[in-house]
Amino acid sequence: MTPGEERLRDTGENRLLARFRELASAGLTPGVVLGSGDDAAILRAPENRLLLLTCDMMAEGVHFRLDWATPWQIGWKAMAQNLSDIAAMGGEPGYAVASVSLPGSAGAEVAEQLAAGLIAAAGEYGTALVGGDVVGSIGPLVVDVSVLGWVEAELALRRSGARPGDALLVTGSLGASAAGLKLLERGGRRRDDPVAQQVLAAHFTPRPRLGEARAIAATRLATAMMDLSDGLAEDLPRLCLESGVGARLWAARVPIPPACAGLAEELGEDPLALAVSGGEDYELLFTCPPEAVEEIRNTVKKARGTPVHVIGEITDERGIIMAGADGQELPLGRGFDHFRVG
Amino acid sequence: MTPGEERLRDTGENRLLARFRELASAGLTPGVVLGSGDDAAILRAPENRLLLLTCDMMAEGVHFRLDWATPWQIGWKAMAQNLSDIAAMGGEPGYAVASVSLPGSAGAEVAEQLAAGLIAAAGEYGTALVGGDVVGSIGPLVVDVSVLGWVEAELALRRSGARPGDALLVTGSLGASAAGLKLLERGGRRRDDPVAQQVLAAHFTPRPRLGEARAIAATRLATAMMDLSDGLAEDLPRLCLESGVGARLWAARVPIPPACAGLAEELGEDPLALAVSGGEDYELLFTCPPEAVEEIRNTVKKARGTPVHVIGEITDERGIIMAGADGQELPLGRGFDHFRVG
Repeated sequence: MTPGEERLRDTGENRLLARFRELASAGLTPGVVLGSGDDAAILRAPENRLLLLTCDMMAEGVHFRLDWATPWQIGWKAMAQNLSDIAAMGGEPGYAVASVSLPGSAGAEVAEQLAAGLIAAAGEYGTALVGGDVVGSIGPLVVDVSVLGWVEAELALRRSGARPGDALLVTGSLGASAAGLKLLERGGRRRDDPVAQQVLAAHFTPRPRLGEARAIAATRLATAMMDLSDGLAEDLPRLCLESGVGARLWAARVPIPPACAGLAEELGEDPLALAVSGGEDYELLFTCPPEAVEEIRNTVKKARGTPVHVIGEITDERGIIMAGADGQELPLGRGFDHFRVG
Repeated sequence: MTPGEERLRDTGENRLLARFRELASAGLTPGVVLGSGDDAAILRAPENRLLLLTCDMMAEGVHFRLDWATPWQIGWKAMAQNLSDIAAMGGEPGYAVASVSLPGSAGAEVAEQLAAGLIAAAGEYGTALVGGDVVGSIGPLVVDVSVLGWVEAELALRRSGARPGDALLVTGSLGASAAGLKLLERGGRRRDDPVAQQVLAAHFTPRPRLGEARAIAATRLATAMMDLSDGLAEDLPRLCLESGVGARLWAARVPIPPACAGLAEELGEDPLALAVSGGEDYELLFTCPPEAVEEIRNTVKKARGTPVHVIGEITDERGIIMAGADGQELPLGRGFDHFRVG
């Protein structure tokens, strides 16, 4: 037993859970009848809604490295990616539970900071952390979050509604998170450099597009939606498969933030590849009839100030084609499959 | 990279998730508007209920060993312990999501068998597995399950309602799961021996007391309830702490199955210690006024055939006392704190 293990073993599951409960209780919302500390949380949901339930797991060495990310950032991201899944359905998140598998060598402060990150991201989006589990482990740090949300039946957006002729749109911009990852891998800029800060923030503390998603859903004009967690190259085929359609992506229209483009070139990376295959941007990918584009764009801009870009169109041929500026077809590459990483 | 890793990497997250979805779709209930495969599941809950949400994680080397338990058993137990948490609130489970962190060395069949175990336990108790995540990992197998359930507001049972003078009761019997674990550690019986089968089944495939819990809740006579996951010695203090009370436990009344008592003596273990400190029995621990004991006992017996035993009483002194047959005070020992195992 190492001294580090000794520390965690002394702290014990009970004390960590008590601290977790104390931290979480600060963010409780009126719908929480009973939060952490019993066998299950007791919760109210708004009436006349369908419920949404999702989970996403992050593992050390695959999704994050403890020498790059702080425990707080890991907590934030684990929560944010789940909130993004609720956004992708056009819904609102309400409650979250989180389980953490903590290596014996980690100090109790790792668990505390991680919980603080989970709670900060949840609180930022009106979500209460209402329960959790902390287990000691012989292996790396693993965090799993589940979020319960809801959506009006008539506003729910699935991946399966895209139709040939629909426009393909994306919120915000793509590639900054992947540029942040490349910067971590390669080095080359000081952490306090403004460009570095921008791409590292995109990578470590992504902001789920919940307001944008609600604005899009409220127009009732979108036909399909999902969030971009694994990159366009991986996620767009999923949307097309569910909808039984294909897509033509216009490379020149993929929105890449200037800072990211500049940094990519500095690092010898193709900015388009980062934007298309990088993943972890947590932007919304959605479809709508071409005549609805302006109304959706204006609604999102007005609600949240976030730009929406048309990046392609849905086709009736199976398969995804990426077209370059002069019409030539480009390879789409592949997205972020975690089994191929780490 | 080992050949095993190669196998899993080739299988990939997408294929595993597709298979997971295929397996889960067989168990879908009418309330599932949209199951696995989108960003979140879309679900209906019965009207006029409070929602229940819980999560529980199991990690290889701490909660299970792959040379002792099959992946199917691990899946069953991971689901069962979450269903038991819903039972502990007096509620009904409806939906589950599960995340699995799978070592690269594991074959895809491990994930499939684990999913089958999760789905079998869920299905046995009317619960639909509606989503999940599978991630590759550099570390041991980790499974996290979250269950969403519901309960009528007037039937919900918390840990905090026990009052001095209440009787302390437990469903079924205690110690078989711990005896199973001891048998695995020490050996000494053939796996097909009837006693071995009984205690190993208790250890590997616990059955959450959902029907019993509903019957107890429906009487509206119980004042507090929880499930026994970490053993009386660890869990009873939690109930007492939440209720602001103490308890006197009568050692001679703790129900120990004869097979377990015999096996414990064979292994040189104290059967009472296994029953009090062993953990993982997933029986219900609850309290009620003394005059309500008979009605609750009869209701549970009639509904499920399960015996209910009075094992002590709630006191107004802080602290737990275990009284021997001749009135002497016995040490309570301590329950199963996962940080002290493995």
